[in-house]
Amino acid sequence: MPNRLFALTALLLLSITVSTSVSAPASAAPTPPAPAVFSIASPDGRLTASITTDHEGRPSYRVDRNGAPVISSSRLGLILLDAPKFERNLAVSNPRTRSFDQRWEQPWGERRYIRNHYNELRVTLTERTRPFRSFDVVFRVYDDGLGFRYEFPDQAALKQLRIAEELTEFDIAGDATAWWIPAGEWNREEYLYNRTPLQEVGDAQTPITLRRQDGLHVTIHEAALVDYSGMNLTRVEAHRLKANLTPGIGDGKVVRNAPFHTPWRTLQISDNAAGLAMSSLILNLNEPNALGDVSWVKPMKYVGVWWEMHLDKKSWASGAKHGATNENVRRHIDFAAAHGFGGVLVEGWNVGWDGDWFGNGEDFSFTESYPDFDLDALTAYANAKGVQLIGHHETSGHAAHYESQLDAAFNLYQRVGIRAVKTGYVADAGQAKVIGSDGKLHYAWHEGQDMARHHLKVVTEAAKRHISVNPHEPVKDSGLRRTYPNWITREGARGMEFSAWGNPGNPPEHETNLVFTRLLAGPMDYTPGIFGTRTRPGSQVATTWAKQLALYVVIYSPLQMAADLLDNYEANPAPFQFIKDVPVDWDQTVVLNGEVGDYVTIARKDRHSDNWYLGAVSDDQARSLPVALSFLQAGRRYTAQIYRDGERADWKTTPEDIVIEEREVSSSDTLTLRLAAGGGQAIRFIAQ
Amino acid sequence: MPNRLFALTALLLLSITVSTSVSAPASAAPTPPAPAVFSIASPDGRLTASITTDHEGRPSYRVDRNGAPVISSSRLGLILLDAPKFERNLAVSNPRTRSFDQRWEQPWGERRYIRNHYNELRVTLTERTRPFRSFDVVFRVYDDGLGFRYEFPDQAALKQLRIAEELTEFDIAGDATAWWIPAGEWNREEYLYNRTPLQEVGDAQTPITLRRQDGLHVTIHEAALVDYSGMNLTRVEAHRLKANLTPGIGDGKVVRNAPFHTPWRTLQISDNAAGLAMSSLILNLNEPNALGDVSWVKPMKYVGVWWEMHLDKKSWASGAKHGATNENVRRHIDFAAAHGFGGVLVEGWNVGWDGDWFGNGEDFSFTESYPDFDLDALTAYANAKGVQLIGHHETSGHAAHYESQLDAAFNLYQRVGIRAVKTGYVADAGQAKVIGSDGKLHYAWHEGQDMARHHLKVVTEAAKRHISVNPHEPVKDSGLRRTYPNWITREGARGMEFSAWGNPGNPPEHETNLVFTRLLAGPMDYTPGIFGTRTRPGSQVATTWAKQLALYVVIYSPLQMAADLLDNYEANPAPFQFIKDVPVDWDQTVVLNGEVGDYVTIARKDRHSDNWYLGAVSDDQARSLPVALSFLQAGRRYTAQIYRDGERADWKTTPEDIVIEEREVSSSDTLTLRLAAGGGQAIRFIAQ
Repeated sequence: MPNRLFALTALLLLSITVSTSVSAPASAAPTPPAPAVFSIASPDGRLTASITTDHEGRPSYRVDRNGAPVISSSRLGLILLDAPKFERNLAVSNPRTRSFDQRWEQPWGERRYIRNHYNELRVTLTERTRPFRSFDVVFRVYDDGLGFRYEFPDQAALKQLRIAEELTEFDIAGDATAWWIPAGEWNREEYLYNRTPLQEVGDAQTPITLRRQDGLHVTIHEAALVDYSGMNLTRVEAHRLKANLTPGIGDGKVVRNAPFHTPWRTLQISDNAAGLAMSSLILNLNEPNALGDVSWVKPMKYVGVWWEMHLDKKSWASGAKHGATNENVRRHIDFAAAHGFGGVLVEGWNVGWDGDWFGNGEDFSFTESYPDFDLDALTAYANAKGVQLIGHHETSGHAAHYESQLDAAFNLYQRVGIRAVKTGYVADAGQAKVIGSDGKLHYAWHEGQDMARHHLKVVTEAAKRHISVNPHEPVKDSGLRRTYPNWITREGARGMEFSAWGNPGNPPEHETNLVFTRLLAGPMDYTPGIFGTRTRPGSQVATTWAKQLALYVVIYSPLQMAADLLDNYEANPAPFQFIKDVPVDWDQTVVLNGEVGDYVTIARKDRHSDNWYLGAVSDDQARSLPVALSFLQAGRRYTAQIYRDGERADWKTTPEDIVIEEREVSSSDTLTLRLAAGGGQAIRFIAQ
Repeated sequence: MPNRLFALTALLLLSITVSTSVSAPASAAPTPPAPAVFSIASPDGRLTASITTDHEGRPSYRVDRNGAPVISSSRLGLILLDAPKFERNLAVSNPRTRSFDQRWEQPWGERRYIRNHYNELRVTLTERTRPFRSFDVVFRVYDDGLGFRYEFPDQAALKQLRIAEELTEFDIAGDATAWWIPAGEWNREEYLYNRTPLQEVGDAQTPITLRRQDGLHVTIHEAALVDYSGMNLTRVEAHRLKANLTPGIGDGKVVRNAPFHTPWRTLQISDNAAGLAMSSLILNLNEPNALGDVSWVKPMKYVGVWWEMHLDKKSWASGAKHGATNENVRRHIDFAAAHGFGGVLVEGWNVGWDGDWFGNGEDFSFTESYPDFDLDALTAYANAKGVQLIGHHETSGHAAHYESQLDAAFNLYQRVGIRAVKTGYVADAGQAKVIGSDGKLHYAWHEGQDMARHHLKVVTEAAKRHISVNPHEPVKDSGLRRTYPNWITREGARGMEFSAWGNPGNPPEHETNLVFTRLLAGPMDYTPGIFGTRTRPGSQVATTWAKQLALYVVIYSPLQMAADLLDNYEANPAPFQFIKDVPVDWDQTVVLNGEVGDYVTIARKDRHSDNWYLGAVSDDQARSLPVALSFLQAGRRYTAQIYRDGERADWKTTPEDIVIEEREVSSSDTLTLRLAAGGGQAIRFIAQ
């Protein structure tokens, strides 16, 4: 057994205490000394993570804040296939700590500079009996949360790990309300959010957000999901959530050779909802930019041949309704050029949409256009007007088929000057398909190890051609945009199209759920901007027009669509002006207020001017929100261009009632934002 | 697509209706005709199971009782590895029905005769597109519940199934209270029962029992778990429970070649708790006796060298405290002979207990005795007195190691005349270990396919030697005792030993939970009969003495232990008399009253006399329960030997306060059973 006393002499930022653990079951053997407890605190000293073992050598950790528990004693460990589990008979030793404080710059983002400031504790867990396998647990504790992960060094007794299950648990200290979506069959993230007591959580995806009765907010998620299966959480009893990894393609949920480490298991912790949405923890726990100069990654707004298909006015498939025709695309290019949009997405341009592609995907060609779509001519036409086509690769989840054409597909786009591609993995009707390490075709899941691998392969192949990637039906976001800045945005939640398909669309609370759950993971290509809210007889988008504008600020995405039919924009130039004006790359972000699922107000400063933008959205309740403008530069005057719900505005009856007005403001002013039911408000603050 | 109209002309016991299913998402395609709904009702017409698909070909079933839903529309299907899932694009057709009504006789049991009366519906689900794979779903609907299973015929496109997950769901119609234990890591069944609202169920083992607000009771479990992984239930959302199969040894949770069928997924349904405990559904859904003449299977009571180890007075390991010495075993044989017990269990008789056997198991020999235990001499000594030794094989979960000695171990027991063996699979500290089909050692789980296989192998090998098997830490009971009557009892829940280990032991409600959960699966070797309730300083068995006696009637087990130290029986001959008198094989069983987790009263008629026995137990509440004796033979008089809690009886303070009295009764009498807190009552009715 490693010598614990030695460990106590290590250089520590914080004291290591020895406490008495819970009694083991009665035994005739003399009671051994209490296992050591190793702890590390955040830079501000308020948040503490501790790790210890019980008398049988079962490791556990806990998290305290201001001296009170956030995560009660919770298990750590792994169950392996074909090897004894890492769960018991472990000694914790050799604590190593370090402190880290760095400011880094995002190439694009919701803020330009991010401080990465944490204290780290690394301990080694070693089996007390043969074969003396070991692994490290590393904690990084920030003021706004923490991450921890397992690291498996190279060792004779542990060459390959076939992980049957992680034993990681999160025993939430206290009653809480939870916002979560079901894990389902690991092939779909597009669910409405459940809002339930913690003890009614089922099998949930992450991020899951919890609000304790005392107002403490905790979001559980993961960072840097690389070559591993995504973590879901199963509530096993009472307040105890347990990791439930997405299945692999057989042979264990994860198969890795040592040395390797798991993703970070993350806890974002705040006294209020706004604090969660201000956190950069997920990004901070990712590795720095691995791509070097990424000035070729260009945030932009775009329009597209897309919404009209969801309204059944056009089709992806060929024929009379085909949307991706030269004529229709040229119209979109002309519109983009006229109104300052950088891109035009075109779906349904390539061969493969005419069969039963849904859940299949084998028929897609990623290089062959339909005859009425002339890729070379259209890209030349667009480029001449300063507009880019945004490429589209729907795979129906057949990653293996896609990979077989990946080089050709990206080479084609590179040749014609396409700089961003939207990919699609609709697979809930079937399954994703990958080529396993055995070279054979396997069925897989969006959140499984092989799809995590696939997405990163696509992103790195795209990066070689200076192409950015926007996957829909993707693997979950875990902050990898820091390392691979061309992974520019993604979907991964119910987007606007659900409201095009008829009832039930997204309810008014949906976006206020997203801000404090899915969007904590990273940007989302939600595709806002719908003025034509009455989509089908008897159904409509649950929004006012002002809220649609506010979403451009509230929902962060460096690729941001103006999703509506061009006719609707042309017919309503006044509100459309905000969509034309709003940037997609930011210098600063301030979350001014918010409650999960109820409302939120966010202000962001343009990265390329001194202007600020504000978005506020509500659920189905009308609200008045006082907002101090103290985020504005002190002593400077701004012209506020206000797009607000009119007096009669209501998402059900009069969504189009919008008031557009200007006033002069300064940082000492307070505005009262009046939001209609399902409403919102968007403001552009022009620095004078 | 198979012709549904033809199906409608098949001979049906019940009408097949065509109803309109829920609308599919909006589509430009013309709406196809509504899928057919096929239904089957129970013999009494009250319970109905229906199966259909939605417009996308997703199959679902529902269960109604008296025209109101019990299980709302719930999914069916499978996810496979390396093959498309069976979930969508399926057509349901070719309904075949039959009726079955048979009375069969148990060789031993809680009742001698059982009526197996059901209506069966079989439908075929066929893919509407290539490769046109198909499977059948079979429903058997009884008056007291139903079972359904998947059957996979031999077919070119489906040779082997590697099942990633079953999609079977149970969407409980209405709010309910649930009694359940966590699935944990599939290596332990020994948990205290949770009593929570349905929407707080986590990841649960079966049987799980639900009580709806209108009093309807539903227990979900499975029958005939053969060569498949045990089903746990994860609550995925709201009231929706989903099958979560125990992992296999890699390469899918279950691997089977077609043709094969799954276990029955069972629903026991009753207006009250007593009705659940009267159900023979699980047995009825198992195959008849496959062993032929099983007159060699002998229910019996036994004492053992066992409880004293749990009290640390003796040890399994060799040395000064060794329990399995010739002297100590002879004392137990003498005691058994003097008091009419059929068996003496001896644990710790064999080599292997001296190392770190817990979670290991490689050191056990199943043929080599410790030097102070003379197997030949002791079995001869016992047999001469009409007593049998009960063998013991602790494996620590190392099934592979056990199997390597299985022939030798059973041959030895057969040679010395041992007719029953208790096996043990303590593996929650490590994992079970099996030899996979690849011939290699794999880690496994109690409820996984390979352990299910292992247990059946042990049982069939034992049957060849006319030996009965009583596994502890077993695979779950699914009624296989009907097919293999030498699988005589098992553990599979927290037994009495938890109360020997100190606090927290089993609470007073534990047995009233067991009756309506675990015991619905089959008999349990709970090991009652503790008079020495103060087991360790500061801890005690949460019971009165009268309750301990009542447990011999309440908890059905054909091997029933008198678990206490012999000294305690010798010192208390009056209450001990009931343990001596009570039978272990029954002609009839009547559950007279009960509420899950609160109390229960059961009367059973001896199979070999006209005497009846009654047991009533309470949780930590004192109660008065009026019980009509109408189960007794009308017109006959009985001497009731009553063992009841005394006036001062209370499990905490005065468990030993027991009153033993006699009175004459007849079937027209009503007794009021007064049960103390943690108390009970046992009555022997001697027919005159």
